[in-house]
Amino acid sequence: MTSADPTLLDGDVMLARAVACLDAIRARRPRVHVLTNFVAMNVSANVLLAVGAVPSMTFRAEAMPDFVGTSEALVVNLGMLDAERESAIGRAVPAARDLGRPWLLDPVKVDRTGTRRELATSLLAQAPALLRSNLAELGSLAGQGEASGEAILLAPRLARSAKTVVAATGPVDVVADGDRLARIANGSELMDRVTAMGCACSALLGAFLAVERDPFLAAVAGLLVYGAAGEIAAERANGPGSFLPELLDTLYHLDAATLAERARLS
Amino acid sequence: MTSADPTLLDGDVMLARAVACLDAIRARRPRVHVLTNFVAMNVSANVLLAVGAVPSMTFRAEAMPDFVGTSEALVVNLGMLDAERESAIGRAVPAARDLGRPWLLDPVKVDRTGTRRELATSLLAQAPALLRSNLAELGSLAGQGEASGEAILLAPRLARSAKTVVAATGPVDVVADGDRLARIANGSELMDRVTAMGCACSALLGAFLAVERDPFLAAVAGLLVYGAAGEIAAERANGPGSFLPELLDTLYHLDAATLAERARLS
Amino acid sequence: MTSADPTLLDGDVMLARAVACLDAIRARRPRVHVLTNFVAMNVSANVLLAVGAVPSMTFRAEAMPDFVGTSEALVVNLGMLDAERESAIGRAVPAARDLGRPWLLDPVKVDRTGTRRELATSLLAQAPALLRSNLAELGSLAGQGEASGEAILLAPRLARSAKTVVAATGPVDVVADGDRLARIANGSELMDRVTAMGCACSALLGAFLAVERDPFLAAVAGLLVYGAAGEIAAERANGPGSFLPELLDTLYHLDAATLAERARLS
Repeated sequence: MTSADPTLLDGDVMLARAVACLDAIRARRPRVHVLTNFVAMNVSANVLLAVGAVPSMTFRAEAMPDFVGTSEALVVNLGMLDAERESAIGRAVPAARDLGRPWLLDPVKVDRTGTRRELATSLLAQAPALLRSNLAELGSLAGQGEASGEAILLAPRLARSAKTVVAATGPVDVVADGDRLARIANGSELMDRVTAMGCACSALLGAFLAVERDPFLAAVAGLLVYGAAGEIAAERANGPGSFLPELLDTLYHLDAATLAERARLS
Repeated sequence: MTSADPTLLDGDVMLARAVACLDAIRARRPRVHVLTNFVAMNVSANVLLAVGAVPSMTFRAEAMPDFVGTSEALVVNLGMLDAERESAIGRAVPAARDLGRPWLLDPVKVDRTGTRRELATSLLAQAPALLRSNLAELGSLAGQGEASGEAILLAPRLARSAKTVVAATGPVDVVADGDRLARIANGSELMDRVTAMGCACSALLGAFLAVERDPFLAAVAGLLVYGAAGEIAAERANGPGSFLPELLDTLYHLDAATLAERARLS
Repeated sequence: MTSADPTLLDGDVMLARAVACLDAIRARRPRVHVLTNFVAMNVSANVLLAVGAVPSMTFRAEAMPDFVGTSEALVVNLGMLDAERESAIGRAVPAARDLGRPWLLDPVKVDRTGTRRELATSLLAQAPALLRSNLAELGSLAGQGEASGEAILLAPRLARSAKTVVAATGPVDVVADGDRLARIANGSELMDRVTAMGCACSALLGAFLAVERDPFLAAVAGLLVYGAAGEIAAERANGPGSFLPELLDTLYHLDAATLAERARLS
């Protein structure tokens, strides 16, 4: 642990990395195994397919070694956690660690139930490459209530204590690994009116982890792509219903020039 | 029980209440816990978000006290009833009653399986604020086959015998509580060609129960909002695929003037 | 088993049968019970509703006799196979056989996990009317890897050995029953970028099995309708997000003239 100020990265370097990641996903079509909640499954699969990755979503415990073993990254989402999926997580995370696959933790709604917070805490001790959460969940895991902290303070603190990269999404996304810090100011308020947008973001970050070894850069790249696409989609949509088709279409077509024009990184 | 004719309410009064409910949902953003089937989850969450409510959908039995306790209403949908959700219902309904939260019962497809009809009957004895069903399900619960009754006769009868409010949806929706009766003639046939439109209606009614203490008025208000939005969306859509995005966009933007212009209440 | 070349059917005859099937589905509104994975449920239900069929999707084992008994066809999809659905399949398939209901097997991702391949093999021995798969799954079941065969060779071989009709979907769909062979060259690459398009195709084929006694002709008719609608939807869509609404709208409106104009059968 250090009390030194985190390093702010260069925006152009991060933008170039985001473009390289997107190109790599489209070229290599990585397989991403996503253990997620029932509301988010279809949307998450479509977000991954739209950028070029290949999702699988089985949560049968005994199938975890086969599916994690044939994937390049694992996403673990705690939303609507039923017993069978909890059991699958218990098989999938050790399999990912044994095989050297990066895995992401999305601690959905840990601020609303104590048992889930305990599980998230125990999973955080099993070396996820990346944690993605909203501010309320971040506050809950960092030992504070929702109102008592800002992402820009809580994310580096949790990153240091848990020795992982933390991506906190909100009006401004924050990525921190204890040493480095980045802010992404893209996105749209309309995304709060569409279900599973955070969960689908986590699924998408799985594809970026599959092609970029540095989870900090993978998170910045993925959040930039998602935020820029969300911003464009919100401009084109007439409301939350037309937003989702627009988001998928935009992710599918997103190019380097558009990303450069939109990026609000700091 | 009374044999007197039910009272027909004044359309302008009900319209004003519908507008007030919609304003209250947008301002207070009530949390609604929805125990529903897998086909309906995503759509139900998006309908609730579009009007401004905040859905949760966990069906882990042990999480029910936490989630019901932090919600303002509970929706119980029996569609595709798996064992884990059935167990969650057994925890959630008593929790809602203990905490004084209104809860809604949607007895999906009780006309097609005897075990589910038995469960619905036992749940009806646990004082739901509101029952929403289609005509076939209503007939099954009221002790008659689909062909043997009309909603306008069956709904008041079931409302009296079960001491609850009954909202029967169809070409003309009927709301009855034994004393009062309302008919809402909005909506579109196209909604029968999109899955989970009835289930999503029940989820939406949960938000109205959260802001309006009288479940009869909550049901009329919610069905009017849903029916008017459905009617507008069907006019804008090219078929059942474009209908759903249009429905969500319409719910998001729906205002008092449009509601007044569309309302066909009696 | 025969080593003779399979018979190629007449395109005009098959087209006329496809139109007749579509008319019959719209007129008779058959009930189709679909045991499918969580990603595919909503989409599959909407595809069935768009053509006029009536889906149900319960996977509670004890409800299988009631639901299969009140349906005209059964669809069994092995994607994301959880224990409860596997148990339901074990009840539903014998019920369908006892009642003389045609049933379809979709062996999702049998190429990625050995336990699922074993289950698919044992189900294949229980006389499905139709098997629908992609090339990788077909290769796995026909005893060869993905790279080692073409659908046009593997489909007739598996059809003969399993004594069923095999529909292998891909850039060109192949339907074989050992004696007969048909190729459908409709569809769009964009369908590979939208989740559950293969699963929804299997669900749709259930509706065709419900109205056409010859499963070979049912498969050709269903694949033609789905491929033509997919092709039209892809032309109208801006990407994978707008594709799905367009697909449902197109299925809903599809007429004989459009089908005749689009059909690429051989």
